Amino acid sequence: MYTLTEHVGLYTDFYELTMAQSYFLTERVDDCATFDYFFRKSPFKGGYVIFAGLEELLSIIENFRYSAEDIAYLREQGFKEEFLEYLKDFHFSGNIFSVKEGEVVFPNEPILTVEANLIEAQLIETLILNYLNFQSLIATKARRIRDVIGDKTFADFGLRRAQTLGGIHSSRASYIGGADATSNTYAGKLYDIPITGTIAHAFVQSFDDEIDAFRKYAEINPNSTVLLVDTYDTLKSGIPNAIIVAKEMEEKGHQLKAIRLDSGDLAYLSKKARQMLDKAGLEYVKVVASNQLNETIIKSLLQEQGAELDGFGVGTELATGQEDGALGGVYKLVESDGKPRLKISENVAKISLPCRKKLVRYFDNEGKFYRDGILLKDQTPENQTIYHPFHYYKNTNISNLKYEVLSQQVMKEGKICCELRTLKEIKEYSMKRFEQLPDAHKRFISPHIYKIGVAKEILDIRDNLISEFQK
Amino acid sequence: MYTLTEHVGLYTDFYELTMAQSYFLTERVDDCATFDYFFRKSPFKGGYVIFAGLEELLSIIENFRYSAEDIAYLREQGFKEEFLEYLKDFHFSGNIFSVKEGEVVFPNEPILTVEANLIEAQLIETLILNYLNFQSLIATKARRIRDVIGDKTFADFGLRRAQTLGGIHSSRASYIGGADATSNTYAGKLYDIPITGTIAHAFVQSFDDEIDAFRKYAEINPNSTVLLVDTYDTLKSGIPNAIIVAKEMEEKGHQLKAIRLDSGDLAYLSKKARQMLDKAGLEYVKVVASNQLNETIIKSLLQEQGAELDGFGVGTELATGQEDGALGGVYKLVESDGKPRLKISENVAKISLPCRKKLVRYFDNEGKFYRDGILLKDQTPENQTIYHPFHYYKNTNISNLKYEVLSQQVMKEGKICCELRTLKEIKEYSMKRFEQLPDAHKRFISPHIYKIGVAKEILDIRDNLISEFQK
Repeated sequence: MYTLTEHVGLYTDFYELTMAQSYFLTERVDDCATFDYFFRKSPFKGGYVIFAGLEELLSIIENFRYSAEDIAYLREQGFKEEFLEYLKDFHFSGNIFSVKEGEVVFPNEPILTVEANLIEAQLIETLILNYLNFQSLIATKARRIRDVIGDKTFADFGLRRAQTLGGIHSSRASYIGGADATSNTYAGKLYDIPITGTIAHAFVQSFDDEIDAFRKYAEINPNSTVLLVDTYDTLKSGIPNAIIVAKEMEEKGHQLKAIRLDSGDLAYLSKKARQMLDKAGLEYVKVVASNQLNETIIKSLLQEQGAELDGFGVGTELATGQEDGALGGVYKLVESDGKPRLKISENVAKISLPCRKKLVRYFDNEGKFYRDGILLKDQTPENQTIYHPFHYYKNTNISNLKYEVLSQQVMKEGKICCELRTLKEIKEYSMKRFEQLPDAHKRFISPHIYKIGVAKEILDIRDNLISEFQK
Repeated sequence: MYTLTEHVGLYTDFYELTMAQSYFLTERVDDCATFDYFFRKSPFKGGYVIFAGLEELLSIIENFRYSAEDIAYLREQGFKEEFLEYLKDFHFSGNIFSVKEGEVVFPNEPILTVEANLIEAQLIETLILNYLNFQSLIATKARRIRDVIGDKTFADFGLRRAQTLGGIHSSRASYIGGADATSNTYAGKLYDIPITGTIAHAFVQSFDDEIDAFRKYAEINPNSTVLLVDTYDTLKSGIPNAIIVAKEMEEKGHQLKAIRLDSGDLAYLSKKARQMLDKAGLEYVKVVASNQLNETIIKSLLQEQGAELDGFGVGTELATGQEDGALGGVYKLVESDGKPRLKISENVAKISLPCRKKLVRYFDNEGKFYRDGILLKDQTPENQTIYHPFHYYKNTNISNLKYEVLSQQVMKEGKICCELRTLKEIKEYSMKRFEQLPDAHKRFISPHIYKIGVAKEILDIRDNLISEFQK
């Protein structure tokens, strides 16, 4: 398995361990703490994030342990024996509340909340950030591509440009976000994602003639042949040879599935290809494209350039989440030892929201997302007034609207207590939720900001903590 | 282990398998093929790449196998029994030639060359690209940071923003490129990289008073305390409290190691911090910084803003190789069945160099890199004229210069045949080589292009192939 199964307890920033030891030695093992996972800005200058990575993360947290080998390593690093003794039986025994994987979420929302003793909550921080930040980034990227292509097809081709083993999770997240398939065979097996592929230039080059390469491939793969037509000359050689082979396939009762363009002007070449194929009576042969694609280029190809493309292979930019490369999700202490906790920052927008909270989504009469509310954990979602976090004159009273409490318990005393779904189910849930997001928030340029309100009780506690500190 | 140990044969793009089956069924199992790994453009608009990922890659290639479980999965995907039977005993039995890991390399150079039968050479393509592209990108990024900071310290803090498990290799590559340490505890154990860390805001917040947090941490970690001073107010609270604790530490015979700034204007705050510390007689206490750093920001802080910083923690941008996110390395067929092979492209710069080749580095009289030459595998490096790949009037006759043949055999008939070094040895080799690169190629803005020449014999073969195709 390429997922985390061994040495899980070491998959953490070193300071989590030194802090944990300090909590331990200052006898704060039983201090209860609450941490929120949230991000402050949607990636890609977009208006939303597709939350991904949760269900696999939970399974790993269940198995967060220190082996004898791990402890021996930590001993070499100078940790104290009492603490190492404590780590021997360490496991996560806290509670986790979270929105569902695949959900559409927004900046500053408490997406996932950990309630545990200080040490447990601290030691799993890096793992949580590592799994959720990356997969949410990629699921969001994939969703943007899906949003642009409608019901055309798109496959993740990113493994060769991914961060080594991170490519397994980029394939997972791409599928949640809307990819139909992946070229990553291992991810296909691990997550039951459809796998797909065409042929490479090397295959064509390895034959003396392009048409021989096409013919041989079609003979062996009569039901899934996609021919790469740009090894020598797309219009003069690749497409004409593909047409000859398609006709030969017809004689044997088969159909060429598609041709793939991988260089040159994709709009021009796709239109030419479509014409040439149609003229040969091959209306059913699809034209697919690859080569440094992203959602912006695909949008331009389809909406501005009139490209006649039926499918897309997206690699580098999908697997690496360009142009951002990372979702800046953070994990902040909001309560400990029964007291609300705050990080004050020079940057006002970075001041955190204290207290144990929950996230509620309100829907308009058409079932679309209307507002999200951040409430105290025990507040009722009904008939609430929710406020802009800093400008209190901006507030909304909410009554008689349908709502869902998005924060649900997913782990209880260290054990998963929610239903784990197949990846396909997560994807379907995500696609359905995305339809409930009003279009104005989906725009690539200046998307409308989805409104989030906070209960006044939380803001009062925060403001009091700031005042206290200033004294 | 988080490295590849199981299902290695599936860690590949699906088309490698369908192509392999096609080679197998067209009875081309014994066709010998040669593929080159190279990239076309240095990342970060820079002038070089630090080649990384090789030694671990070789170990994985040695263990590239298909288990019964893998074959069962491929059977479900419709592969034919004869081919599945072949995969049962599959292992890589070819030869690999490569420059050393840690070497400074340049665009269009054959960095790594695989000679094997077509199927073997094809099946390991994705793995090669996945391991070398990413680690070379990150090692290059780390080297740029190292180049800017001289003998100050810098640590990799990227795990929480990395591509999940890819973070293990970003830590590995960062160390090769010049990081002194990593926060990634597992990578520390796996690769024997020094591990490091400070404290988080949550640690400070979890105490009622900032100074209590500082005091407790210092008590438990008297020799490695780095205090984070921006949880509440850097100048009014954080630094004054750190100074009090540093003085208390002195009384017990200890020294505060450093304070860390993680927000605000790092130039202003570091100067203030230095003054405050010095005034308190704490000249030995270092000031380190983190918060969305990269080599450009660090360069500006040190060279333009007069920041008084002794060390840096670099996370997101290092682990994700921003602003590029990927090195676009490719793997191209250059010979098969005894014939030179070529990919012609609409983009002239993308036309590949055919034939089995080797890479030679020539040195000037001061021992600095002078030229790299791409020669036929059996050519002598002495007294050669090497040519610009397209403009033949640009050529250089090289005689009486010291040279090294960079392409050395690292795998023979599927077994590693080079010395495997510790990561520290790779790093030291890399740093030494980098000193031999003339400064003009190290500039961040418009770096001087390092000259690479090609033997006329190779260019003639290429040009003949193009002419033949045009007929």
